[in-house]
Amino acid sequence: MVSCAIVGATGYAGAELARLLLGHPEVGELALSSSSQAGEEMAAVYPNLAKSKAARLVSQDEAIAASEVVFASMPHGHAESIAAACAAKGALFIDLSADFRFGTDESTFAAWYGSGYARPGLHAASVYGLPELNRARIAKARIVANPGCYPTCASLALFPALRLGLAGDGAIVIDAKSGVTGAGKEPTKATHFPECAESIAPYKLGAHRHAPEIAANLAAMAGRPVASIFAPHLVPMNRGILCTCYLPLAPGVDVGRLRVACAEFYANEGFVRVLPEGLTATTRNVRFSNFCDVSVHESGDRRTAILASAIDNMVKGAAGQAVQNMNIALGLEEGSGLGALPPAF
Amino acid sequence: MVSCAIVGATGYAGAELARLLLGHPEVGELALSSSSQAGEEMAAVYPNLAKSKAARLVSQDEAIAASEVVFASMPHGHAESIAAACAAKGALFIDLSADFRFGTDESTFAAWYGSGYARPGLHAASVYGLPELNRARIAKARIVANPGCYPTCASLALFPALRLGLAGDGAIVIDAKSGVTGAGKEPTKATHFPECAESIAPYKLGAHRHAPEIAANLAAMAGRPVASIFAPHLVPMNRGILCTCYLPLAPGVDVGRLRVACAEFYANEGFVRVLPEGLTATTRNVRFSNFCDVSVHESGDRRTAILASAIDNMVKGAAGQAVQNMNIALGLEEGSGLGALPPAF
Amino acid sequence: MVSCAIVGATGYAGAELARLLLGHPEVGELALSSSSQAGEEMAAVYPNLAKSKAARLVSQDEAIAASEVVFASMPHGHAESIAAACAAKGALFIDLSADFRFGTDESTFAAWYGSGYARPGLHAASVYGLPELNRARIAKARIVANPGCYPTCASLALFPALRLGLAGDGAIVIDAKSGVTGAGKEPTKATHFPECAESIAPYKLGAHRHAPEIAANLAAMAGRPVASIFAPHLVPMNRGILCTCYLPLAPGVDVGRLRVACAEFYANEGFVRVLPEGLTATTRNVRFSNFCDVSVHESGDRRTAILASAIDNMVKGAAGQAVQNMNIALGLEEGSGLGALPPAF
Amino acid sequence: MVSCAIVGATGYAGAELARLLLGHPEVGELALSSSSQAGEEMAAVYPNLAKSKAARLVSQDEAIAASEVVFASMPHGHAESIAAACAAKGALFIDLSADFRFGTDESTFAAWYGSGYARPGLHAASVYGLPELNRARIAKARIVANPGCYPTCASLALFPALRLGLAGDGAIVIDAKSGVTGAGKEPTKATHFPECAESIAPYKLGAHRHAPEIAANLAAMAGRPVASIFAPHLVPMNRGILCTCYLPLAPGVDVGRLRVACAEFYANEGFVRVLPEGLTATTRNVRFSNFCDVSVHESGDRRTAILASAIDNMVKGAAGQAVQNMNIALGLEEGSGLGALPPAF
Repeated sequence: MVSCAIVGATGYAGAELARLLLGHPEVGELALSSSSQAGEEMAAVYPNLAKSKAARLVSQDEAIAASEVVFASMPHGHAESIAAACAAKGALFIDLSADFRFGTDESTFAAWYGSGYARPGLHAASVYGLPELNRARIAKARIVANPGCYPTCASLALFPALRLGLAGDGAIVIDAKSGVTGAGKEPTKATHFPECAESIAPYKLGAHRHAPEIAANLAAMAGRPVASIFAPHLVPMNRGILCTCYLPLAPGVDVGRLRVACAEFYANEGFVRVLPEGLTATTRNVRFSNFCDVSVHESGDRRTAILASAIDNMVKGAAGQAVQNMNIALGLEEGSGLGALPPAF
Repeated sequence: MVSCAIVGATGYAGAELARLLLGHPEVGELALSSSSQAGEEMAAVYPNLAKSKAARLVSQDEAIAASEVVFASMPHGHAESIAAACAAKGALFIDLSADFRFGTDESTFAAWYGSGYARPGLHAASVYGLPELNRARIAKARIVANPGCYPTCASLALFPALRLGLAGDGAIVIDAKSGVTGAGKEPTKATHFPECAESIAPYKLGAHRHAPEIAANLAAMAGRPVASIFAPHLVPMNRGILCTCYLPLAPGVDVGRLRVACAEFYANEGFVRVLPEGLTATTRNVRFSNFCDVSVHESGDRRTAILASAIDNMVKGAAGQAVQNMNIALGLEEGSGLGALPPAF
Repeated sequence: MVSCAIVGATGYAGAELARLLLGHPEVGELALSSSSQAGEEMAAVYPNLAKSKAARLVSQDEAIAASEVVFASMPHGHAESIAAACAAKGALFIDLSADFRFGTDESTFAAWYGSGYARPGLHAASVYGLPELNRARIAKARIVANPGCYPTCASLALFPALRLGLAGDGAIVIDAKSGVTGAGKEPTKATHFPECAESIAPYKLGAHRHAPEIAANLAAMAGRPVASIFAPHLVPMNRGILCTCYLPLAPGVDVGRLRVACAEFYANEGFVRVLPEGLTATTRNVRFSNFCDVSVHESGDRRTAILASAIDNMVKGAAGQAVQNMNIALGLEEGSGLGALPPAF
Repeated sequence: MVSCAIVGATGYAGAELARLLLGHPEVGELALSSSSQAGEEMAAVYPNLAKSKAARLVSQDEAIAASEVVFASMPHGHAESIAAACAAKGALFIDLSADFRFGTDESTFAAWYGSGYARPGLHAASVYGLPELNRARIAKARIVANPGCYPTCASLALFPALRLGLAGDGAIVIDAKSGVTGAGKEPTKATHFPECAESIAPYKLGAHRHAPEIAANLAAMAGRPVASIFAPHLVPMNRGILCTCYLPLAPGVDVGRLRVACAEFYANEGFVRVLPEGLTATTRNVRFSNFCDVSVHESGDRRTAILASAIDNMVKGAAGQAVQNMNIALGLEEGSGLGALPPAF
């Protein structure tokens, strides 16, 4: 049994991670930390966890000290010191913030997040934790950067086309739609029920921090720079991200060939489901699960395919993928603790 | 490993039951039947179940023949013949319809459902499957009538007060609010999104078929007839039932005493959580789980307590309770396959 | 043309009132004030009002100075001084807070709102602005206390029975359900989309400040004290209040007679619609209008009737009723500016 | 006062049109017809219209005979005969179906709707009723084809760029999101609340009938063929369409210049609001109004602008635009009966 800690357990991703780890058959002790609510019962903060084994909240230091695996679900800027503490004691560290997602590309990180690296060596040793892309490296990693929710969803839709050379020239448009849990726990005007119910709104057009992360992923997948345009929208639902991707096809490639290629590409992946012709990816069918559904469609324009991909932003887009990364890094069965099937409704 | 069948697997309760049984560690083969879609893949009907072990839909006879435990999730009127088939082969039968819920009280069943019993002996042998009320009898039963969703939620709120003699004279008002999945799979005007979103509506006031089931439960709990008024409402959400119960208190009983009594009464129940003072039962905290949350409140009128109870109508109100009943009847751990914690959001 | 001011125009009720007054055919100049956003364009704060005649926000003093009619939509505690300023200049004052709702009953106000009256004479001169109850007095008033949203909805359901002596002994249970706009503009945990979507929650049971206002209304209607229990719930929708009222009937009174009595009682009221047998009041049918729908139902218990009443909490429950009160007090047609029919969806 | 008829008054667009015309100051008699419900009271079918002047439903022939202006809100295939009847009696005909939207381009209509024209002369005489594009022709028309909801929203976003030569080469991607009322009144699986709540789903990718209508509009605006890709999505809300348009810019054109050009282009339009930099079009701010909001944004890619446009699909996307067309064709004030401001929430 593995002992785990969640630093920042009372944020939304942290709380979801707690829920998953409490049901993980290989996880023993689970230390939950909160900077602001240490000393309180987790089940008092999250009454959904009453009658579970969720423990009293402790300090970050206590949580790290007790654990072989440390997850951090904090705003950016906190992960380097936690990574250092984990390295010092030999713990596996899986970070859900953006701090390690840009690897050695400090300049991009600094450009979008406002400060550079204090410990560049830690970044050099880290791995970007998209299992479908980096599984072998994750298996050997001690610092894993858990991907952003939008980058996970968009990248998985486009990976086969980019890796297999089926994408043509021209920018890929990624029109992304997210449920409101993606905005986190803090009440704001934009997430106040009367402001976001019964409406759909684009936000941070041309300025969302997941754009450079997506660009890095697409380049890594294609082996070359790939132009992309990313536009996120807020949808009145709790869970889920849908990416509608408009992909220029390489000359001679049609949608049917792309669909088959995607299905073959992901045939052995446990958490990616390429839908047969006639079905369309929707967030409904992946909610509360670690699945990513991908469907491939005609656009009415022979040169462009439309790919739809859907994930649960809190699971494959955050906590579930973190568990998947832990499983890989520890040599456990990759789907351990992630077997819950998505409900139909 | 137990072999199970679900007759009527493509309705909402059937599909939810399939999801739960596919994740149940003691369930082996799972036969799914559908009268109208036999031959199709379950995952084609319910794409959320893609990449699961959900099998091709078969006929009712095939499903029953293959299984030691048979669940039926059909409209009322079909269960007697299934029960007879199960009895003939020695299978445990758990029925999610109303057909067996009234036990030997054929006249009440006939008054509300329009026809009497063809096989009264089966009814005499059946048990009403509310575990908190009838656990010992369920353990020996071969025919279990799984309770209705509203009756489960309302009855669990009121059971301690009625059993312990803390309820006074006067009718108990049960104002119940349900998510839309309770109306089932069939599209109707009332469940058409534009008709039920952004609105709340009472329905079937004074005429809902769960009223006599509630009355029977309250009488069984109190050991005497108990007057009650039941008013259901449709709420624009998918999952959950909230019952707000206005309970006349027995002379000398106050809300504090009732709250303590409820907590003690359910202290050893795995799926009932009596909330501490200051917390209020909401459907949010029980969604996708088998929990029933109960909270006890002042009404501002010394003679009346308000009890709020919340369940997921598809889990504790249907499929989850059916699994719980199977576990009890088979001597398995009562919570086996029901360990998923409710998500916070 | 009448010149109007809204003090507190950027809160939800104030903004709704601005929208209604901008479309009122008898309203000329409309001054909008905000303590925190004076100087900004109203249409910058509320972009829905772009291309309307909504003016730049001014200070409270400027707004009052410019206007013959002053509405205040502020938290409680601010209305006495505004009322005094209006009295000094002879302006009609319509207050949407609780400050004047309790008339000369200072002790009840103090018990629920924490402080007494500084200017008792103003309260003695004020009228509780429920037109169906106090129309004649409103017509002569210079200070009108606009009723609370829940009290409006609950009181209109019960008024005929109480006034006509059709109510029996025993407490009336009022189970009330509100959309989230009722909680106002300020983002909070309870109104954060992920916390209130897909859930229904009771709140402030036995402790909501509208309970004493309801009690005062029921007593005024019946001419005697009337016991009532009030339990509010938060529903995942923006607009609307539904009250489900459980009314003990006087001996010999049945539901059919009560329904007829309600219909006759309100026959000449422009904004109360008593539904025929077979229809049920829902919030859907009154949204964005000043209507209150009332329906009368059997409970399954001969001694108790169920009345359902529905309003739009922001219109008949706040801004619309304020306009109605202005119309009455100024001798305008009572429905002027309130003719918008509710949309079906 | 003008006498009007609505053929197909009980569908969603028809019912919304009834609501608008009942509040129109220049409309006198309003005849409502329904093929299936003739003889019933409109207020029995739509209880939101109780206490309005909505009349009893009559037959199509009666409705047309009584009226100077005839609106039809029927499935495609019915409008030619209604148009002929109107022409015979000299009535203005405004059709909300697709039957007249393709003008003399019978082949496109036939390709997408399955049959050609029976009365080509009527089509030659008809005008496509997008007032911002065809106002002068609408003023003289006797047959107006009211545009589709998606084409209205998408076309208004792109009109300035196309007309002014600011669009570059390459396909325009139009990612469109619609509320569920767009699917009409008939309950279906896709619009069953539990199937569409808490989810977002693309549909009819590459195959939606509004694609050729959009293409025709863009060509008319640009004066040349314009490549476009249209992808609609279903969003869990009742009202509204948001189009997110990815527009290749002509060489040397930047987003700032495009924004200014859009604002100037629409400066005199009463129902198009080009938002200032920093604001984003959302469906919230146009609900229940005839406004179209447009905002212009950087994409992060210098060659592409993102335009967001929002309408209420039932108003500017259907019934409101029909009223606007009537006003123009009759020489009334263009905004008559359309003055209701959108609510903030």
